[in-house]
Amino acid sequence: MLKCGLKTPVFSDFLNVDIKEMKNDLLIRAAKGEQVERIPVWMMRQAGRILPEYRAVRSSVNGFKELVKNPELICEVTLQPVDILGVDAAIIFSDILVIPEAMGLNYEMIESKGPNFPKTITSEQDVAELTTDVIPNLEYVFESLRLTKSALNGRVPLIGFAGAPWTIFSYMIEGKGSKTFSQAKKMLYTNPVLAHQLLDKITTATIAYLQEQIKNGADIVQVFDSWAGVLSKAQYVEFALPYMNRIAAAITAVPVILFAKDAHYILTEFAQTNANVIGLDWTIEPAAARAQTKGKTLQGNLDPCVLYADKATIKKETEKMLQSFGGQQYICNLGHGVYPDVNFEHAKYFIEVVQDYKL
Amino acid sequence: MLKCGLKTPVFSDFLNVDIKEMKNDLLIRAAKGEQVERIPVWMMRQAGRILPEYRAVRSSVNGFKELVKNPELICEVTLQPVDILGVDAAIIFSDILVIPEAMGLNYEMIESKGPNFPKTITSEQDVAELTTDVIPNLEYVFESLRLTKSALNGRVPLIGFAGAPWTIFSYMIEGKGSKTFSQAKKMLYTNPVLAHQLLDKITTATIAYLQEQIKNGADIVQVFDSWAGVLSKAQYVEFALPYMNRIAAAITAVPVILFAKDAHYILTEFAQTNANVIGLDWTIEPAAARAQTKGKTLQGNLDPCVLYADKATIKKETEKMLQSFGGQQYICNLGHGVYPDVNFEHAKYFIEVVQDYKL
Repeated sequence: MLKCGLKTPVFSDFLNVDIKEMKNDLLIRAAKGEQVERIPVWMMRQAGRILPEYRAVRSSVNGFKELVKNPELICEVTLQPVDILGVDAAIIFSDILVIPEAMGLNYEMIESKGPNFPKTITSEQDVAELTTDVIPNLEYVFESLRLTKSALNGRVPLIGFAGAPWTIFSYMIEGKGSKTFSQAKKMLYTNPVLAHQLLDKITTATIAYLQEQIKNGADIVQVFDSWAGVLSKAQYVEFALPYMNRIAAAITAVPVILFAKDAHYILTEFAQTNANVIGLDWTIEPAAARAQTKGKTLQGNLDPCVLYADKATIKKETEKMLQSFGGQQYICNLGHGVYPDVNFEHAKYFIEVVQDYKL
Repeated sequence: MLKCGLKTPVFSDFLNVDIKEMKNDLLIRAAKGEQVERIPVWMMRQAGRILPEYRAVRSSVNGFKELVKNPELICEVTLQPVDILGVDAAIIFSDILVIPEAMGLNYEMIESKGPNFPKTITSEQDVAELTTDVIPNLEYVFESLRLTKSALNGRVPLIGFAGAPWTIFSYMIEGKGSKTFSQAKKMLYTNPVLAHQLLDKITTATIAYLQEQIKNGADIVQVFDSWAGVLSKAQYVEFALPYMNRIAAAITAVPVILFAKDAHYILTEFAQTNANVIGLDWTIEPAAARAQTKGKTLQGNLDPCVLYADKATIKKETEKMLQSFGGQQYICNLGHGVYPDVNFEHAKYFIEVVQDYKL
């Protein structure tokens, strides 16, 4: 049952309407460091992994990419966790790899294997051929945002997102997932000039993309550096941080969340950026993160595997975490995307525990 | 050309002979915190990845496991990096998964995919059926050590090794490699009692295995916790550290190296164990590691991707690292195993740069 149909009059009324009053703006206030009366909570990958309702939508289309390009279905699956799990934010269902594609590098998503780029970037010519004029190629995302924003009707904030330049670069060079991303890293050592050229173009495209997401309804944006952990600190400082900095400086209309998985070494530097929120994976101790990121809101960081446990364990582990972070300048989340085989009832219980937690 | 044949008289003379005088004992002295006149260097995975001479041996057998069980060939490929690259230690060519196999859980090594366990551990009964009496099943390793020790003739120390209990546990539950090891972690939350039972048995077997390696020629041993990085600090402290502690306490005859990849959060705790040396991956800053591990020797931690670069870059990055660590209480190494597609001439140059470095 589609809730977000373009032809559904009840929602079309809201299209392009600026929703002044948000019923639940906890996430935005926490992101800005404002006082909250309870801790906001959402889950990375909350849309598109664990819900039976998502799987029903997913099986109605021919492959992941068909879903990623269908605004009505995107709206549908983006709303599902708000309706079913009661999270305090919606995050638009999409894929970080829409940016390389919009720049001119197509990819395919291979079932149970992951993304594959038939052509990868190997030369200056390849980089030169990429466009940064990506907005016309991403209209399906913006339409999805408008539809979703309208359908949300101010219930909770809508999160936009993009991959971090280093992570997007990794896929464009490596061509697929990797444990080491050794081919992408190879270019950092063998052709740093070309690496910077490509990272610069990705950053330009990403800033334009995020700004257009905001124009079309995103109330806050997150930048995902999924493969940060394969870099040394020196490399991150040279090849990733300057581009994260540029993004955080360019996005001023809404709060920005930076999340670099496994980059335990970069928290102090992230705290110097213009970003409002720093995301943490579960290998980071809350107290250590607080000490390194004064003034910033923190987001995270429950081990996604906790959701495999029984309710008593979920409650115990979640509350231990909430206590460690404290109730202000904090957004509760997992430390990475929810795993596909997690029982959604457990995820729902996690959300409830956070929302019942008394400050 | 086999150098280590059981039937080769020139080497058989050395079998079971205690070699009193080691010509190059830099690694052992550095491990013990004794003064050295230059920095010792070896590379994780130095045997069995990058050398054409290795590939020739590898292609002469039917699969990886046939090689792992052939003492003469093991001796051959263990010596190759000593002869060709000039490293300051030999590490016995083997596989961490020989322990689960010796405990009763067979595995197969699938070409270009990795290990696969047809049966995994799911119940108390499965754990009960595993044996810790592994020594009789690992005679091929001990014979390899004796042969290699003899053939080395005291040129450099011989390193023995084992997988850390958590890493071995991961494979025994998950059954194969994984980005998240979410099934292995699931058991930590859903059945911690059974998890500890299995970890305890693995530890008992591992200590016996390492002690027998030492009896058969290992001059120093390293424990590899390859999948430490998927655990939170709290989980590592509960499910991994106690077993690392037990191993480090049990092995007193030779120095012990603990290496937990991506476990940036555990250095302070490792410094409290009886281990002599703490291995580091390249995400750890040398100065930060020194501050957390007073009194211990450190080992590591060049990004393996540096070896893709030209010689000038290899020299610059290596010398920067050597300067950061300082020349004493330090063993130079990569931050992980050398990558298979690295040109061995580059690896050789890395070794030379370290050996030419003036203290």
